[in-house]
Parts: sequence; C-alpha cells; structure tokens
Amino acid sequence: MAAAAGVSITTVSDALNGKGRLPDATRRHVREVADRLGYRPSAAARTLRTGKSGLIGLTVTTYGDEPFTFTEFAYFAEMARAATSAALARGYALVILPATSRHDVWSNVALDGTVVIDPSDQDPVVSELVRQGLPVVSDGRPAGALPVTAWVDNDHEAAVLGILDHLADAGARRIGLLTGTSTDTYTHLSTTAYLRWCERVGQDPVYEAYPAHDPCAGAVAADRLLARPDRPDAVYGLFDPNGTDLLAAARRYGLRVPDDLLLVCCSESTVYANTEPPITTLSLKPRRIGTAVVQLLIDAIEGAESDRPVEQVIPTELIVRTSSQRRSPRTTVSPPRSPEET
Amino acid sequence: MAAAAGVSITTVSDALNGKGRLPDATRRHVREVADRLGYRPSAAARTLRTGKSGLIGLTVTTYGDEPFTFTEFAYFAEMARAATSAALARGYALVILPATSRHDVWSNVALDGTVVIDPSDQDPVVSELVRQGLPVVSDGRPAGALPVTAWVDNDHEAAVLGILDHLADAGARRIGLLTGTSTDTYTHLSTTAYLRWCERVGQDPVYEAYPAHDPCAGAVAADRLLARPDRPDAVYGLFDPNGTDLLAAARRYGLRVPDDLLLVCCSESTVYANTEPPITTLSLKPRRIGTAVVQLLIDAIEGAESDRPVEQVIPTELIVRTSSQRRSPRTTVSPPRSPEET
Repeated sequence: MAAAAGVSITTVSDALNGKGRLPDATRRHVREVADRLGYRPSAAARTLRTGKSGLIGLTVTTYGDEPFTFTEFAYFAEMARAATSAALARGYALVILPATSRHDVWSNVALDGTVVIDPSDQDPVVSELVRQGLPVVSDGRPAGALPVTAWVDNDHEAAVLGILDHLADAGARRIGLLTGTSTDTYTHLSTTAYLRWCERVGQDPVYEAYPAHDPCAGAVAADRLLARPDRPDAVYGLFDPNGTDLLAAARRYGLRVPDDLLLVCCSESTVYANTEPPITTLSLKPRRIGTAVVQLLIDAIEGAESDRPVEQVIPTELIVRTSSQRRSPRTTVSPPRSPEET
Repeated sequence: MAAAAGVSITTVSDALNGKGRLPDATRRHVREVADRLGYRPSAAARTLRTGKSGLIGLTVTTYGDEPFTFTEFAYFAEMARAATSAALARGYALVILPATSRHDVWSNVALDGTVVIDPSDQDPVVSELVRQGLPVVSDGRPAGALPVTAWVDNDHEAAVLGILDHLADAGARRIGLLTGTSTDTYTHLSTTAYLRWCERVGQDPVYEAYPAHDPCAGAVAADRLLARPDRPDAVYGLFDPNGTDLLAAARRYGLRVPDDLLLVCCSESTVYANTEPPITTLSLKPRRIGTAVVQLLIDAIEGAESDRPVEQVIPTELIVRTSSQRRSPRTTVSPPRSPEET
C-alpha cells in the first residue's frame, strides 16, 4: 500500500486515519490509492490506532453461565431500549451479549467499553474487562471491591423500607418477602433492608429465595411462601413475575387480594394495571438508568470532561393500586414501630 | 505456542478448536500450555477457522447516512426487543448498528449475518453484505433485485385497503394519506395501494409525504394536509407519531375527531389507547417479525435444515378505537365502489 502510493507507512496510516500534518493533496492521493487497491486496514489494527471501535457492550452477568434471555423481563427490555437509543444517538453500536454462548462472542468484537447489569460480587466478567483496561459502567452499585468506572442505581434500601411501611399502614401484621439467591447488590440490599425492618418492628422474617432467572422457580417459591404455617398476610416480591405468581398461589389457597393478602412487586410491566385486582408495583425507572449508564460509559470512553457524577442514584416510584389497599381494614393495630418512626 | 507444546501448528489449532482426531491427552496438554502462555488466537483468525463469531447485526438502512435513533419509535423498539430475545435464546449476541457513526463500526465486529430493517431499493448496505457472502434477512420484502437470503413482512397492500374501506364505511368521503419520501417497500406498497384505491373509488388522492425519520417534519406534514383547500375528512398516517400530530393539527383547525375528521395511524404505541379521543391503530406485529427474522438469519448462518419458509408474511391487526367511528353518521352515502366490492 505504501509502496503503491510512493509514501511511508506512517504517511499511509496518518492519511487514512485523518491524523498528522499532511498536505491535503497527499492525503487525497493516499486515499485514492487505497480505494483503487481495495485496501482496508484490519479491524484490530484500526482499533489499536484510533483507540476506538464505536462498539459498546451490554450484558447481565448475575447468573454466571446460566442461559438467561434477560430481554424477556420488562426491566431489562426497557433498560436495553433506552441504552440502545442513547448509544445510537451518539453514533455507537450497542452489542447485547448473551451470558453464555457456544461462540467466543467477547473475542469477536472490539468493544470500547461495557455496561454490566447487576454484577454479582467478585464478578469475573467485570474483573476481566477492567484488567483489559476497558471502562465498565454497572447498572447496580458494585459489591465490595468490584472496580467499576461508574455506576447507576436506585436507593434499594429506602425503596424496600417505604414499601414495608406502606403495607404496615394498610394493616399488614406479618409481611413476607420473595427474594433471589444471587449475590448482586439489588437482591442483597433489598433483602437486608427487609431483615433490618423486621428486626426493628419485631416481626419474624418470612421469606423464600429462588434463582430469579428461572420463571418456574418463581412460581414454586410463591406457592411455598403462601403454604407456610406462618403464612404472611402481605408479600413484597423483588422480581417482575412475582405479582402474577403470587396472585395464582393466593387463588390456590383461597386467599382474597387485598382482603386476606396484600401484594406489591417490583416490576415495570404494564400488565399489573389490569390484573384482577391491579397490583401495586415499584418502578426502578429503567429508562433513566439505561440512558445514564450509556452516557457515563461513552463519557469515559471519550475521556470527555463531564459534569455527570460517576455514582448516580435514580429515584424509584411506588405505583399504588388495589392489591396493597385494604377496603375495610380488619384491624387498626399497627405492628410495633421503632421510636424514630412514630 | 506449537514449539512450547512440542506439537505441530495444526495440532495446536485442532486442539484449541475442538477439531480433528486427537488423543484427549494431547488436546488437554495443548490447552494447558495455551493457558500457561496466556495464548488467545486472534478474533479474526478464530472466526476464519470456525466460520462463526456468534454475532449478528441489526440496523435500519432506510434513511442512508441520516442519523436516526430508530429505537425511539415503538415499532423498532418492539422489533429489536424480540430480535434480541431470539438471538440471546440461541446464544448469539445482537449488535444494533447506527445508520451513521464517526467510527467504522462494521469493520470492528465479525458479524455472522445481519438483519436489515426496511431497506431502500438498491440499498448499498445490503449489496455490500451480500457481496461479502454474509446472510442478510430483511424486515420488509426487498424491492426489485435486492438479493436477500430471506425476508419477513406484512401484506401492506391488503392492510391499507382494509383501513380505507373501514374509513369509507364510517362515512369518509375524501380520505387523505400521510406518507414518507423514502423508497423502502413499506412506504412504497402502502402508497401505491392508496393510489389504486383512490382510482377505484373515483376519489382524487390527497396526500403529503415527508422524511419519516424526522419527527418535526411529520408535524409539519400533518398540518399541511389539514390546511389544504381539498381538506380530507379522514386520514391514514403511515408512521408512529402521525396520530398525535394529526390530533394536534385538527385542534388548530377546530376539527373534532371523529365528528369532522376520522383518524387511523400505523403504530405499536399504547399511548393511542388513552389519547383524547383514542385513536384507531394498525399493528404490524413487530414482535413476531423480530423473532422470525432472527430465526431465519440464524438458520441461514448455521446452514440448518429448516421448515421455515424464507419469505414470511405476518398478519396485521386493526385495533378499532373512537377516532375512526362516527357517533352519528352525517351521511349514509358511501363513496362509489368497484363492482367486486359491492
């Protein structure tokens, strides 16, 4: 290529990459020769020179090598949509990577950086990406020493405490929790907030944990929770399908919602506006999160000066519907509350 | 690497790629040496050998080099979500590529194949991908000689004729069309179906065309259509935001919907269930399309025997709401109809 153009290799490289101080005529000449020869520098070489591929990754690492079609869940679907829009708007391609694949997908794409959703503690994907010097922005604050470039998250403890108080105010005496077995901070912080609340109000914890990427396991856990001898009279479910699973289980045990059982679940799904009865949901605002993580990642990739804080907390919203409001409270006695609450 | 393991280059390659007839011990030995040396075959070399990267692309090429954040539109968002789920479920990563980028994103990823949404006629992206021998599946039947591996589409002519008949049945005497200036088959087939219908019923066509990726242009076109001296008493809009744009324009001209103006638009957005009044929409079933295109693409990549036809037509659904139903028809005179319709 350099020989054909009668210039040095450096000149070819500079001309094709818009770098260096070259006369316009030289640049034009090199480009014409390159076009004539059908010359395309290899992807890897090009990326090494420019330092940028224009590709950013997005993946859920929570469940390790378990197959997980995460876009089937409303939270991830909305988050990924917002992330895609934010990437496209800044001229980046978004690569949505599977947790597990026969192919070595990570090696076949030159990512400038990656968004990791709900990393587990000591997440090996995050550690490897950081080792390679690539920016990683996590959706979900990282546990312990996980070294991410930036993170965006909700205040999960405050959200759970707010829901438990809301249920207690509606007359709940024993609130149960459907939670997960994974070690991401969403699951961890939500569960510890629940346990702390129980301790504070003097209620024995009543919870079931299951692998949240498995929808069947969720239905079984909901059933198990309502079959317990110390059956709760209110349940908060941490995951999207918990509302419908709990409704189905309540029906099996002849429990009326909200009269016998109050329900809230964390979900972005609009189906809960039309279930019988409609179910109160906590929204984590995945669109705002998806936009924020991609903005932070691209800022880090481009080394741009930015006013955006690298740790962002997005407010949650409790959408109160019939399932968490007692029509005629059967009791006005609230569970004992700690002094700062009363 | 071969020297360190004391074997031939072919043996290294076979051992690391799970190929050839090697004793298990040899395979294990080579892998251990590779691990010890931190040896990773390059992405390009690996892809050449295995022939597969596990990455498939998805892009909208309709508007050429115009920036277009297509996931902001409900159709593309739902289609992309379904495509992502279908890809993840089969262990593939989905790369959502921008129409235009500072980066050479296409060169920086080893795609096994690509889904192209609404290609324009003589689409250069499709032509280049096919020239490279990569499978291309299009959402939207290709125009003319565009050589795609497979396509999935709706029957847009039947859908438009159905809508026009529906509006005529509701009392419309002069039906207008909001259409696009692009040369993809969706826009083309829908527009020609409208023109043919007009000819058949003896109505002068009343339409405005605009570049559909530009939301501002849509609002202006809606306004222009209702400002015409030959103002239509019913409008069908081909694109997602047309419903709200037409409602706003109707308000400016003091037109009541549906009394003075009947409205239908093609949209997947749920907002039209709650506009004032709710607007009748045509759904193109993007989830089914997104799933189908990815299934066809992966079948083609894997050379799998498949029963799936490589040209699939997905049924549309007209969701009839207030905007296309006259409360008290002002006339019972229908526009003249062709013999086969009566």
